[in-house]
Amino acid sequence: MLTQAPRGTRDIFGAEMKEWHKVEGIIREICENSGIEEIRTPIFEHTELFLRGVGETTDIVNKEMYTFNDKGDRSITLRPEGTAGIARAYIEHGMHNMPQPIKLYYLSSPIFRYEKAQAGRQRQFHQFGVEMLGSFSPAQDAEAISVASRLIETLGVKDIELRLNSLGCPECRSVYNKRLREFIGENIEHLCPTCKDRYEKNPLRVLDCKEEKCQSIIKDAPSVLDCLDEECTAHFEKVQEILTEMGIKFTVDPKIVRGLDYYTRTVFEFVTNSIGAQGTVCGGGRYDKLIEECGGQVTGAVGFGLGMERLLLTLEAQNGKFCDEPYKDIYIGAIGDRGFVKSQAVAYNLRKEGFKAECDTVGRSVKAQMKYANKIGAKYSVILGDREIDEDSVSLKNMETGDVQEIKLSEIAKYIAK
Amino acid sequence: MLTQAPRGTRDIFGAEMKEWHKVEGIIREICENSGIEEIRTPIFEHTELFLRGVGETTDIVNKEMYTFNDKGDRSITLRPEGTAGIARAYIEHGMHNMPQPIKLYYLSSPIFRYEKAQAGRQRQFHQFGVEMLGSFSPAQDAEAISVASRLIETLGVKDIELRLNSLGCPECRSVYNKRLREFIGENIEHLCPTCKDRYEKNPLRVLDCKEEKCQSIIKDAPSVLDCLDEECTAHFEKVQEILTEMGIKFTVDPKIVRGLDYYTRTVFEFVTNSIGAQGTVCGGGRYDKLIEECGGQVTGAVGFGLGMERLLLTLEAQNGKFCDEPYKDIYIGAIGDRGFVKSQAVAYNLRKEGFKAECDTVGRSVKAQMKYANKIGAKYSVILGDREIDEDSVSLKNMETGDVQEIKLSEIAKYIAK
Repeated sequence: MLTQAPRGTRDIFGAEMKEWHKVEGIIREICENSGIEEIRTPIFEHTELFLRGVGETTDIVNKEMYTFNDKGDRSITLRPEGTAGIARAYIEHGMHNMPQPIKLYYLSSPIFRYEKAQAGRQRQFHQFGVEMLGSFSPAQDAEAISVASRLIETLGVKDIELRLNSLGCPECRSVYNKRLREFIGENIEHLCPTCKDRYEKNPLRVLDCKEEKCQSIIKDAPSVLDCLDEECTAHFEKVQEILTEMGIKFTVDPKIVRGLDYYTRTVFEFVTNSIGAQGTVCGGGRYDKLIEECGGQVTGAVGFGLGMERLLLTLEAQNGKFCDEPYKDIYIGAIGDRGFVKSQAVAYNLRKEGFKAECDTVGRSVKAQMKYANKIGAKYSVILGDREIDEDSVSLKNMETGDVQEIKLSEIAKYIAK
Repeated sequence: MLTQAPRGTRDIFGAEMKEWHKVEGIIREICENSGIEEIRTPIFEHTELFLRGVGETTDIVNKEMYTFNDKGDRSITLRPEGTAGIARAYIEHGMHNMPQPIKLYYLSSPIFRYEKAQAGRQRQFHQFGVEMLGSFSPAQDAEAISVASRLIETLGVKDIELRLNSLGCPECRSVYNKRLREFIGENIEHLCPTCKDRYEKNPLRVLDCKEEKCQSIIKDAPSVLDCLDEECTAHFEKVQEILTEMGIKFTVDPKIVRGLDYYTRTVFEFVTNSIGAQGTVCGGGRYDKLIEECGGQVTGAVGFGLGMERLLLTLEAQNGKFCDEPYKDIYIGAIGDRGFVKSQAVAYNLRKEGFKAECDTVGRSVKAQMKYANKIGAKYSVILGDREIDEDSVSLKNMETGDVQEIKLSEIAKYIAK
């Protein structure tokens, strides 16, 4: 047990880490270019925030939170999603007094859910998300969607489809919930246990159920779009108009509902259907009630998120491994004690000049050093011994061609520069 | 309470976040260039790992850990330092079978200690650290120190001094502990309560005490360096020889002991004495017993760490704010509904071409839009209305000079390109 990470958690390192770096680099660049700035909120928050912000009826709050009392006997919870903490930060720092909108992102944020360990389900996983706070305008929905769309495209996710829906405001929703309950009617008996529960609390979520029997019951259910009032309809149409003007393709799909309770009006998902990578890669929507619910002023807001692990699995399934081969510019080998000491300083000085230089720091034989130089992908190598130091002359070997060149010690940088 | 981050935690965003990015960028570059690769270990580990890896007699383990039982009733702890998790990862993934050394870093990793809230002491703070595993050679100590030194220099920390010491192996240490206890002798009465405790468990730590009375007792204490055996002496001398060859300046200071129990042989600290920023910015050392203690094979290891918050405070105290002024390439304003829709698409397309473009997404008046464009540091602006769209002509305004130029809508990118 001592030598294993806790169940449902894992280390990220090596080639996988390089893939994360690649993805993170693209995400940061697109966010910065879209005027979205990073925020880092604490790993844990007061438990109450998530009860309010995520919703007391959700699976997350009911069954999956890492909640405990700290030494001061306050209930704190490791964050089970990324939005509530940002809503809290918006309120705490009086961000509504700054020029709106406030556009924030969080990247590779650890998220914690106590779930049964199963394929692809970690108890600590990582999310990227964008939150745009301070606007009720449909233009803000379109901006959020356009950023997500560009990201998905730039990252190289294939066979992707954008599906759009509107859940309306709470009034529209209550009309729809009533109509949906009527439609399900006697079939409530045949719903799965989870959906029986949803039928009362939030029947919309039945649309989202993966169970076949629930799907067959709900197949011809009325559309939430037929229940939208005039304002919600106009909002949704304007979102579509702007996306069309932007040239972003989408499908309206009234079955898109999202898993969290806090969404209002626009919701959307980017879904991929390519073999081995089915499912939602990215999703989000508008949540105009959340800031108020968490104790702030009435504030329009829209955002989206994606699971880093799922994104990486999708990219790997579609494109194979996608990190570059590691390499070093040069390996500085050594013979004897003087050479050993000198090689450390030569490597150090080459690094200072920007080269990826390595040298022996474990005491390998010369033969083992050369094997190691090969293994780490060194493009050049030299070996330093008494003779090389005394005569100020080293044999610079091109590891690919095998060519050798006699040069001065001080000239290494010049010869290996690209 | 709902609208406040838990005590001892805080959000990082805005100008401060940009300072973190700057520092993180420098750190990543130097690590990559030195062949050190990132690893991300889980936020929590089995509690037992820290009891073993950090030491049951330390303040951290005794009083400061965030320990709780998960839903499966296992004791887990939010990591109170960065090294133990990496030691565990080294063992779990059989990294001793890969070519040595394994050089890893962790960056801005959240660390949790339940401490009394006081100036600069957060309960969640963040560390950068480097661990080099798999070598007993003094060259590895020198490499670790050289990376730290280059970082500190490149980051621009001023008035910095490198202090070196060796604590020897456990045998040397036990000789020294005996001699130190003898030296303190009857003065034990006058030590602070913490040091009275340390006197028995780990008298070395008395050297590190900040209390004046302890300092005056210990002023002329024997030096640990006089208790080193032949091998430990040779190791320490070779570290110094290599550093000297590298041109890295240092002072030998036998009072440097570091706060954690696991160090063996070399320990070091980078200390700054500039006004307003006194103290240790970065520290580390060799810890040859840790991997074994955690259940792995006997493994040489050396590392260092630094607190991100303290580093940033030091840099700010010495250099003032150091993030660049934010700017946007262009603001696309709008009049009327057609202009509003069009402006969204124009901004979107400019972003796709790599420009930082913003537009109105909240419904501001034209006057308010121009005020906003100024506020966000837009270099250029245009306003789109029916006329501009119908005639395909916009007035591109240089926000700094006030110059206006009539151009085609499709030519914006051409004119604002640097």
